[in-house]
Amino acid sequence: MYDYHCTTVKPGRLFGLGVGPGDPELITVKALRRLRESQVIAYYAGPHKHGNALTSVESWLRDDQQRLALIYPVTGRPPPPPFDYEATMRAFYDACAERVAEQLGAGRDVAALCEGDPLFYGSFMYLHDRLAERFETEVVPGVCSVVASASVLQTPLVYRDQTFLVLAGTLPEAELERLLAETQAAAIMKLGSNFEKVRRVLLRLGLAERARYVERATMADEQIRALAEVDPARVPYFSMILVPGERWRGESISDAD
Amino acid sequence: MYDYHCTTVKPGRLFGLGVGPGDPELITVKALRRLRESQVIAYYAGPHKHGNALTSVESWLRDDQQRLALIYPVTGRPPPPPFDYEATMRAFYDACAERVAEQLGAGRDVAALCEGDPLFYGSFMYLHDRLAERFETEVVPGVCSVVASASVLQTPLVYRDQTFLVLAGTLPEAELERLLAETQAAAIMKLGSNFEKVRRVLLRLGLAERARYVERATMADEQIRALAEVDPARVPYFSMILVPGERWRGESISDAD
Repeated sequence: MYDYHCTTVKPGRLFGLGVGPGDPELITVKALRRLRESQVIAYYAGPHKHGNALTSVESWLRDDQQRLALIYPVTGRPPPPPFDYEATMRAFYDACAERVAEQLGAGRDVAALCEGDPLFYGSFMYLHDRLAERFETEVVPGVCSVVASASVLQTPLVYRDQTFLVLAGTLPEAELERLLAETQAAAIMKLGSNFEKVRRVLLRLGLAERARYVERATMADEQIRALAEVDPARVPYFSMILVPGERWRGESISDAD
Repeated sequence: MYDYHCTTVKPGRLFGLGVGPGDPELITVKALRRLRESQVIAYYAGPHKHGNALTSVESWLRDDQQRLALIYPVTGRPPPPPFDYEATMRAFYDACAERVAEQLGAGRDVAALCEGDPLFYGSFMYLHDRLAERFETEVVPGVCSVVASASVLQTPLVYRDQTFLVLAGTLPEAELERLLAETQAAAIMKLGSNFEKVRRVLLRLGLAERARYVERATMADEQIRALAEVDPARVPYFSMILVPGERWRGESISDAD
């Protein structure tokens, strides 16, 4: 009988929250406020994993906030054909969007947690593409892993008019070399099994000395290494190589030093 | 008489704090904590200006925190030769470092405010280069203007293995064109008087439709425009053009849609 008298539920809001690189304190004041306002906490995680995004905000959550785990069907290197990776992932993101939409439709605000920033190489973008036109959506930007890695290295990353390139280690070796040869500073993400290839390229370009390897920046088990000291067999996904721009010393024609 | 009994003062700590893009709530919890711990608040500003970094944290400051203004000798387009811009700026940064060092030497913690992130195209880098080896220094990364601009545009910026290029509008036109032709997504900073040149390049590359112009992202007077709607005579320094990567739709061989 109740159904006949139901008034329309006001849909919840979708918050795409950049939670930062890992250190719980590197969340913004705004993202923390939205996090605490949300009835549902949605997060991606690998199979049988807790998820870095959830880990980094856990100390801020209350017990009465519902957790909604979005578990990746595949992580790491995709299986070879005939497995259709693209179709699998698309179906996964469609299903995630529907699970989140269900919560929003029931009038609950949903915080979708995003490591780093929501719109910079993050899985939140697939929720955004599917839901932002159907529900009130707010994106709160976050500290991305690129600048977090520079901060743990304590190394200025880009000076003045230098160009800065972000690229994936998954690119073919020749393309990596061509692109890195043209930039003054760079961040190379998605290393994992691509590390050895990237290191070869940087050695050939004379950039290996200047480059630094950072693993799990700002997390409890963070690691910083020179490229020569990295064991290619033990490079996780949450790692990055930074090639900082050459230091600007203010040299000029009248420089008497 | 007192001097003879003085013990050595423990030097203060230098905090390079990313305060984010402008919205006071887009500071991190950690930067806010360090800000409140600091006796001295150092910030850059243009002549006769308040400074965006100071503006964005002002609501968090106490009256007993000392303000140390570092006023740029030149802003905007440098005067023509014989004015030596490089030497002028180097002398300015040297003097800034000494003023900060004086506070640190007197045992006071200094928070150096940085719009966006401290190590990403910021003036903090010149303090860091001069002081990090002399004093205990901590860099707290921040939300940079690139991802903040994407959040106000509500547009995913880079998908999966796309390359992302950050460059300055000050580069020569041919070089801008060559670099932008090769990337899948980009942010073009330092627009000001370079806007018209950048727009020409994006039109030639067929990227003008996809590109968006953002001015003072997350600040009270933020502006978003299509490139065609921008008046080149009124483009401030705190503006940016974003060229988002093409949306990934998960197309695949078996895609029946």
